Amino acid sequence: MIRVNLFKRLGIHTLFFSSKDKRLASSIKLIIGRKPLNLSLYRLALTPSGLGEETAKGFKISNERLEFLGDAILGSVIAEHLFKKFPYRDEGFLTETRSKLVNRETLNEIGIKIGLKNTLEQVVSTRQFIGNKSLFGDILEAFVGAVYLDRGYKFAQKLILQRILLHMNVEEMISTVTNYKSKIIEWAQKESKMVEYRVLRVNGNQRFKEFVVELNIDGEAMAQGKGGTKKKAEQEASKNACEVLGIPI
Amino acid sequence: MIRVNLFKRLGIHTLFFSSKDKRLASSIKLIIGRKPLNLSLYRLALTPSGLGEETAKGFKISNERLEFLGDAILGSVIAEHLFKKFPYRDEGFLTETRSKLVNRETLNEIGIKIGLKNTLEQVVSTRQFIGNKSLFGDILEAFVGAVYLDRGYKFAQKLILQRILLHMNVEEMISTVTNYKSKIIEWAQKESKMVEYRVLRVNGNQRFKEFVVELNIDGEAMAQGKGGTKKKAEQEASKNACEVLGIPI
Repeated sequence: MIRVNLFKRLGIHTLFFSSKDKRLASSIKLIIGRKPLNLSLYRLALTPSGLGEETAKGFKISNERLEFLGDAILGSVIAEHLFKKFPYRDEGFLTETRSKLVNRETLNEIGIKIGLKNTLEQVVSTRQFIGNKSLFGDILEAFVGAVYLDRGYKFAQKLILQRILLHMNVEEMISTVTNYKSKIIEWAQKESKMVEYRVLRVNGNQRFKEFVVELNIDGEAMAQGKGGTKKKAEQEASKNACEVLGIPI
Repeated sequence: MIRVNLFKRLGIHTLFFSSKDKRLASSIKLIIGRKPLNLSLYRLALTPSGLGEETAKGFKISNERLEFLGDAILGSVIAEHLFKKFPYRDEGFLTETRSKLVNRETLNEIGIKIGLKNTLEQVVSTRQFIGNKSLFGDILEAFVGAVYLDRGYKFAQKLILQRILLHMNVEEMISTVTNYKSKIIEWAQKESKMVEYRVLRVNGNQRFKEFVVELNIDGEAMAQGKGGTKKKAEQEASKNACEVLGIPI
């Protein structure tokens, strides 16, 4: 293991690269700042799900597994960043802010900005993916997974903070904290529906409380929410109802 | 920074520990295998949300922020573990398996098993938290967050794999993969409701497809789901409906 790594760190493996491999490796270097040690990881990250070859047993090789891994790494790096950046904000704020930062649309834009489109075009024509709106967001996540496997957590963390987070306007996203309850009330007024929030039960004791709130629309239960305060539970229920009703958030 | 760390690594800071601190530090050592460098992180992890003091500005100090961080670290370590353990399973399986492993109930049991109850009792009486069923799961997550901040990613990873995952019966959890669609159909039969799955639209082109399925109950839209196949989209819609209808999963 150590010998293989040394071999790679010295760059000896690149002697066996085809000219296509070399081009791919340099364009990855432009994104991550270093030459890739294991090029095949990055090649996998650049394999969108529609494209992967099918193996004998019907298992499709694509970047979706790497996307799962990269999503998790991205989540924990951003979690730590927000944890340290906002020492006086509660976990609800942190969760909300993270999910705003790591949404499909933002990731897709960033993927294009940091050059994944150019890189993908070296491997395959991107025309065939016109219908796929989260193509570069998915590739970005898979790419983070590849970087993590290739170079470890600290390297991936640095990449995320210095090259990805850079494109996220944290301050702006925070100022648009979504008030789900007001979304529901607005919607109800427009649709002339009756909205009612009802506390179903309160779990716990004096020290620890959990409210369970039900959101009724025209007398019919639409969604539930839980939280340490009635307000939080109502927000949660409203958020769920937005999803059910397809109200854009 | 380096000087402080050296100071701590040599254990000089423990000379100033009260006897209570010393007891707490040794009981943490029993769990993580090393003496804590920054004891206050662990003390924070052992501060359940009902208990925290309120600061001047109404901000409550509790372990909830650490829980947010620990949850993310736990998520990415388990993601990598599953990614490597199951090289031939798709991302749907990986996501599903992870959310089964990292559920409140399991974490709570593990928290007690690895000794967090004993540790917490050194700081505060646990009687007052009887209503809180996820007390030790929450503390476990916060504890992971504290370990990560105290000793870094690799150390936290080792702890999770060697001391937490050990108590998770991965094989057993996998064999009980939830079929959400059958849950919904069972429920509908019991409640004499009509269930209908309807493909709303198909996004994408020949190469890339995304199905959007709506689940109707008695002719009313209840939930939607998206996926690369009709089956996946139906599962997703059923899962969402289970949440809305409060069907236990």
